[in-house]
Amino acid sequence: MMETTQRWVMNSAREPLVFEDLDTLPPEPGEVVIKVAGCGVCHTDLGFYYDNVQTRHPLPLTLGHEISGRVVATADDTAEWMEKAVIVPSVIPCGHCDSCKRGRFAICPNQKMPGNDIQGGFATHVGVPAYGLCPVDEARLKDAGLKLADVSVVADAVTTPYQAVARSGLTSGDLAIVIGAGGVGGYTVQIANALGATVVAIDIDQNKLDAISDYGAALTLNASELQLPDLKKSVREFAKENGLRKTESIIFECSGSAAGQRTAFGLMTYGSTLCVIGFTMEKVEIRVSNLMAFDARMLGNWGCEPALYPAALDLVLDKRVQLLPFVERKPLEEINEVFDAVHDGRMKCRAILIPEAVE
Amino acid sequence: MMETTQRWVMNSAREPLVFEDLDTLPPEPGEVVIKVAGCGVCHTDLGFYYDNVQTRHPLPLTLGHEISGRVVATADDTAEWMEKAVIVPSVIPCGHCDSCKRGRFAICPNQKMPGNDIQGGFATHVGVPAYGLCPVDEARLKDAGLKLADVSVVADAVTTPYQAVARSGLTSGDLAIVIGAGGVGGYTVQIANALGATVVAIDIDQNKLDAISDYGAALTLNASELQLPDLKKSVREFAKENGLRKTESIIFECSGSAAGQRTAFGLMTYGSTLCVIGFTMEKVEIRVSNLMAFDARMLGNWGCEPALYPAALDLVLDKRVQLLPFVERKPLEEINEVFDAVHDGRMKCRAILIPEAVE
Repeated sequence: MMETTQRWVMNSAREPLVFEDLDTLPPEPGEVVIKVAGCGVCHTDLGFYYDNVQTRHPLPLTLGHEISGRVVATADDTAEWMEKAVIVPSVIPCGHCDSCKRGRFAICPNQKMPGNDIQGGFATHVGVPAYGLCPVDEARLKDAGLKLADVSVVADAVTTPYQAVARSGLTSGDLAIVIGAGGVGGYTVQIANALGATVVAIDIDQNKLDAISDYGAALTLNASELQLPDLKKSVREFAKENGLRKTESIIFECSGSAAGQRTAFGLMTYGSTLCVIGFTMEKVEIRVSNLMAFDARMLGNWGCEPALYPAALDLVLDKRVQLLPFVERKPLEEINEVFDAVHDGRMKCRAILIPEAVE
Repeated sequence: MMETTQRWVMNSAREPLVFEDLDTLPPEPGEVVIKVAGCGVCHTDLGFYYDNVQTRHPLPLTLGHEISGRVVATADDTAEWMEKAVIVPSVIPCGHCDSCKRGRFAICPNQKMPGNDIQGGFATHVGVPAYGLCPVDEARLKDAGLKLADVSVVADAVTTPYQAVARSGLTSGDLAIVIGAGGVGGYTVQIANALGATVVAIDIDQNKLDAISDYGAALTLNASELQLPDLKKSVREFAKENGLRKTESIIFECSGSAAGQRTAFGLMTYGSTLCVIGFTMEKVEIRVSNLMAFDARMLGNWGCEPALYPAALDLVLDKRVQLLPFVERKPLEEINEVFDAVHDGRMKCRAILIPEAVE
């Protein structure tokens, strides 16, 4: 009934991932087995593999948390999902604990992240909870010129900024500033633009700025050439020229760097919202009281609640957020080479690893 | 018709305030003249007077922004206020600009703060905009054993934390942690407790902790004796013993000190909200990414929108927030001595300066 199932396993940091057989059958109650169409390579995977960031599940473990595919096996209570094309949330809350019942899905203590808490998606098949699966309309997918593998990056790379944008209250006419314009930051630019904001993208990599300037960034600023006072002045003048408010900018910190966080905080003004999306272990020195003086706020953002996935996917299927210029399909069997290429900065686009031969 | 009107004027920093005649009549359109019942002495006043913080209105200026009193003169368009007992908001938005129309009163660019943008309340009379005045029900005031002068501190000392508590979404059953238990912090403890939270108060001054322990603090912790890990452990154990959630604590930073801000940030956990109420020019070094990892947030709070004043005053008139243990009435003519006493830490309670002889 089901073909051989296999996965790539991490046994220890920086040791080549190993290909091995995997038994995913039968699914546990509440779970499904998904035949993986594609699984995106995220910097979080690289952190586990290269930088000794600890996975919550002990090694050996299969990495990968941006998964799309088709349900090929179900349990008694998940039969409704059989044969469906789906995206697996990168953070899967349990749905029934005290936090989930109060809508605080991001802090569900039972949450499962594939490739961290449970086996991940760099495999032919993966077993995951059915809770929160996002169905993919394959007719619309085809109309949008996309394959099921492509929308794997909706989990995390698109949905994480989508939740941050939704929480920020961003609305048409707002000024959005995105710090870090690659990967997650690039989708943040596209989403904010799709929802009616005028977007300023800031990065230290001119290539990333050039790449995003055709996809929603009305102004790009290179922070390797401009100090904070110049960045502030440029943003202020741009706002004035475009008839935007000089207050209440919504700033998205996506670089996950101390320098980016300092820039983001420094750009805050009266009524600003700073969304913290990127992660770094580094500390930064800031005047916290500016939040009081500016009546401003900082909103941390972890993952995306499953209920928001369909709306994020809609932006992609409606071609308001473009994936294809920013992804590159690679055969799953090249996983070790792809990890190295991403780690060395040799890939401009987000790699999607595909178990089937890439066409 | 109106008796002599006089005020105490600051001509320059640390130079004794000078008593002089003041002409407040007739009120400008949209304004009223208030016969001051009392005006609270806030640390912001001391900042202007002792620490060279610049007032927005050039000197000479009368300080004082916690004002209660009775309307004794009105303009054609403010006649409805004649004879009314009122509290003057410490931050008076214009009510008709773009920010105000969108409900962002705190960042109204036309906002007036008495004793900063306009003449303040250390006077027998003061002229202020009628917009946002909070009527005081004198029958309820009497029932609560209060004089009109006492509720002057509702402006700022009570309402500023009230807005922070309201914005935090604090609700019955929450764990609230208040850093800095004097003045504004003390009222934060009382308000959070009145709204159903269980409150932990942290300070470095045992006297302040003792003073607040009978007024809503279920646990007090002395940060001069406990390091951050011990504070965290104490809070965690207290939450467990009292059946409270270990996540989503709501933390109010009222100390306006770098040490307090570091403690506040260090106490954050999954889903926490940190309300920044106190102000300091100092910077602190923090791991901003904790906000992302914890799905947590920081909310700056400036003043309080006038629409929230009646609800804050209700807590006082219903005796759910006690003023009398924390205020001390002083004759206005002793203003120079009182400023020195507050500055030197010789007053345990908030001073309210009263133009009429104190009974």
